[in-house]
Amino acid sequence: MTSEYQGRPECRDFVNAGATQGQTPSDVIFAADVTFSCITNPDAAKELVFGNCGVLAEIKNSKGYVEMTGIDAETSRCIGEAIVSRGGRYLEAQIQGSKLQAELGTLVILAAGDHALYNDCQSCFTAMGKSSFFIGDVGNASMMNLIIQLISGVTIAGLAEGMALADRVGLSQNDVVEILELTQLNCPWILEKGKSMAEGGFPTHIPLAHIQKDLKLALLMADRMEQSLPLTAATNELFKHAKRLGYGGHDASAVYIRARF
Amino acid sequence: MTSEYQGRPECRDFVNAGATQGQTPSDVIFAADVTFSCITNPDAAKELVFGNCGVLAEIKNSKGYVEMTGIDAETSRCIGEAIVSRGGRYLEAQIQGSKLQAELGTLVILAAGDHALYNDCQSCFTAMGKSSFFIGDVGNASMMNLIIQLISGVTIAGLAEGMALADRVGLSQNDVVEILELTQLNCPWILEKGKSMAEGGFPTHIPLAHIQKDLKLALLMADRMEQSLPLTAATNELFKHAKRLGYGGHDASAVYIRARF
Amino acid sequence: MTSEYQGRPECRDFVNAGATQGQTPSDVIFAADVTFSCITNPDAAKELVFGNCGVLAEIKNSKGYVEMTGIDAETSRCIGEAIVSRGGRYLEAQIQGSKLQAELGTLVILAAGDHALYNDCQSCFTAMGKSSFFIGDVGNASMMNLIIQLISGVTIAGLAEGMALADRVGLSQNDVVEILELTQLNCPWILEKGKSMAEGGFPTHIPLAHIQKDLKLALLMADRMEQSLPLTAATNELFKHAKRLGYGGHDASAVYIRARF
Amino acid sequence: MTSEYQGRPECRDFVNAGATQGQTPSDVIFAADVTFSCITNPDAAKELVFGNCGVLAEIKNSKGYVEMTGIDAETSRCIGEAIVSRGGRYLEAQIQGSKLQAELGTLVILAAGDHALYNDCQSCFTAMGKSSFFIGDVGNASMMNLIIQLISGVTIAGLAEGMALADRVGLSQNDVVEILELTQLNCPWILEKGKSMAEGGFPTHIPLAHIQKDLKLALLMADRMEQSLPLTAATNELFKHAKRLGYGGHDASAVYIRARF
Repeated sequence: MTSEYQGRPECRDFVNAGATQGQTPSDVIFAADVTFSCITNPDAAKELVFGNCGVLAEIKNSKGYVEMTGIDAETSRCIGEAIVSRGGRYLEAQIQGSKLQAELGTLVILAAGDHALYNDCQSCFTAMGKSSFFIGDVGNASMMNLIIQLISGVTIAGLAEGMALADRVGLSQNDVVEILELTQLNCPWILEKGKSMAEGGFPTHIPLAHIQKDLKLALLMADRMEQSLPLTAATNELFKHAKRLGYGGHDASAVYIRARF
Repeated sequence: MTSEYQGRPECRDFVNAGATQGQTPSDVIFAADVTFSCITNPDAAKELVFGNCGVLAEIKNSKGYVEMTGIDAETSRCIGEAIVSRGGRYLEAQIQGSKLQAELGTLVILAAGDHALYNDCQSCFTAMGKSSFFIGDVGNASMMNLIIQLISGVTIAGLAEGMALADRVGLSQNDVVEILELTQLNCPWILEKGKSMAEGGFPTHIPLAHIQKDLKLALLMADRMEQSLPLTAATNELFKHAKRLGYGGHDASAVYIRARF
Repeated sequence: MTSEYQGRPECRDFVNAGATQGQTPSDVIFAADVTFSCITNPDAAKELVFGNCGVLAEIKNSKGYVEMTGIDAETSRCIGEAIVSRGGRYLEAQIQGSKLQAELGTLVILAAGDHALYNDCQSCFTAMGKSSFFIGDVGNASMMNLIIQLISGVTIAGLAEGMALADRVGLSQNDVVEILELTQLNCPWILEKGKSMAEGGFPTHIPLAHIQKDLKLALLMADRMEQSLPLTAATNELFKHAKRLGYGGHDASAVYIRARF
Repeated sequence: MTSEYQGRPECRDFVNAGATQGQTPSDVIFAADVTFSCITNPDAAKELVFGNCGVLAEIKNSKGYVEMTGIDAETSRCIGEAIVSRGGRYLEAQIQGSKLQAELGTLVILAAGDHALYNDCQSCFTAMGKSSFFIGDVGNASMMNLIIQLISGVTIAGLAEGMALADRVGLSQNDVVEILELTQLNCPWILEKGKSMAEGGFPTHIPLAHIQKDLKLALLMADRMEQSLPLTAATNELFKHAKRLGYGGHDASAVYIRARF
């Protein structure tokens, strides 16, 4: 059974499809054995749990709560401890992939926390993604997600510099993409973003502002560990600049605009 | 017919296999219709052509000269003009790929210059690589090669920062590689280098010093065009640092050593 | 009259000198017309005000509260609003300068908030520093302080790269400092830090970890404004690296250690 | 006695003032005991010496040649060896300072090479600058000059980021400059450039393209020594970007334009 909290307009679609709609987050928890949360950012995720008529009020008896919001490890641990202290079960499940993967059902789910709950969720995860991966304690999935985003962000920004230089010296950007396809760099992320830069449209598969947020969270995580990340820091400044130029809502490949000019 | 210049010890293998050995570069040109040159660096490539008893002395009557040394566009144009002014035909052919690709016969040949000569070389290129790509005027293949190397270098350095951070926060680096394999970043370059970092062996497929040299050449090319490449510049400093730490002869993935400590 | 809160061991010296010692922050506020707070970091500053028996409990009737802790603008505004809403007067006063300036009485006080309170504090400020500067609304002094720290941090890290390169090519670092003294770069910050690098002692005038904290706060401030600061970000990574190498408690000039190796 | 080569239009002023004008560089050498050269760049400096009717033709009998062009150590060593091998004496003399210092007679002369020739030139150096500094073997003055330029370049770019951030958060840039004047960063370079950024005029004291050229030469010097200079590299990219935006001929403080937008 699926129960929906009315916080989001998409709710109606789900309700029309047979889901029950709750008036408050706690209504939703009350009505379901396992609840999935996916909201805009870490602060909103916390408010949903700890706020008035929030999730915590109805957590008990091994109720499962699956946090799918893109959050940092601290926030996830904070939510997880509260859920578990009320007798609930907690799983963080971070989604790797873009709108395109979502449509193709090839998202990857990175999960951490309660392993039994992870097993209970397998059918749901299978519906969403091509694979899921359990990584241990609460916080690990959030951290792993940020690391994959960091690698994705640096790769795309490096690609943008290469594409900008190609254009500048008079080479065809389509040739660059065709050649990349023949080399060891042949992967969907690089080819898709390269094509987007060559065409200049930047239709949004994953918003530039989303990558920048994750780069910032990765840098804050590294700051706490005193880990120096010069390239990630440089990349973050490029994405920030592109955001300021008005491309935050465009696809992440729009970082090319910053590299080019 | 293949003719070999005795400058390199590997010569004997070729001679044993039936090739003729020349005493000087001009001997080789004299004996062959098309000569392939592949030597250590741009300066050596120039010396081979312009030096005493060099290539130029015997260039005439549409003799073909194929420069496969990893060089910058200026050097290539300089050699090409000299060859053509003597009545010869010139092709620059840059090899994309590592020792592993060489063994697997999956190198990619980027060629530019004389198109008829390019056609004449097809059977040779097919023997060496899985594909070849003609990009127009002399200089274009060199520039394209540097751009692909730039993208490769930034990608691997970003991967190194991600792997270093993973280790620092207690995540398994093997998990990172397994997850990358599930995502859109699934390409041989990223997976192979990621495994190399996780294992720590750095067996040389492509030497770190080679990538650093190409990053420097790409930056010099960009300097002439007044193109700002902050990420490439930051990456170059990381590779330079790894070189100083003694890893210039190791695989390029050893940039991880610099990212980690 | 000076009243001291017993949170710090230095208290005894002040008490011996005639100051009254309070049991709690609110005791101190009760006993004094104007209270100066200077504590380790933004979180501690907030706790002092909002915590149990905190400052707020006794704020009323135009009592003055002067926050001298190195904090960000948000924290300062949050404290300031609370003080003012209870009828108190609030001034943020940020100290520019190192231990050496403190000893020499040449600190610079950057102040913002209640101008009448600023006037009331002139005699105190004169005792501490050679000059004070009023910059308007609460938050402005904190922001100005971070900007001066940012410039100081980048300058010292650039100096470190120059000194490292000098050593590497066999030039005398003492010569570099002597020559800097003759040029337009002749200022106490550059000469003092240059000498410290040449000698290698790094006696602490301003701790490296303190500059790094301010670089991070400046970057977070810039992130909210979508202002790209590539050089500041690169500098922050260098200081972070030096911190990890164990130099967080040494003088900021120890960033040289990171630049050198 | 002063003899002038007619390569430059300013010649007439000198001739009118009583100098002899030579038809070729070798004429000038022939007529003088000591010749000072100051021309646009390293390549031009080499051409002047080694070209047709160049300097070398008349070098003999302890004739002195003082190279004041801003050059790299390799070029200087190459010229020096040629001069000395003909029996001449060679001194490299690098000028530290801007147009303003030139007018005020406060330039600093960094010299290296023949110490006796250095002594012979003291009266000339005194006329040009407030002080001169002898640093040993040929090449040392060039290297020292690049190191001072590196520090100058990073400092000014850091200042630009601070000024840009100040403006962005609503602080007065004139306040920043006034406060810098009170702090340990009080030096002509920082105050003059800060004022230029606050006013936005960028009247040229030292051209931006000149600093960028020196940053590039410093990076190439560091590349040969395998010395990593991440901050210098990042700074070079900022200056290059400002150059591309059309500010190469403006004052170096125009790097602010790049930092701001």
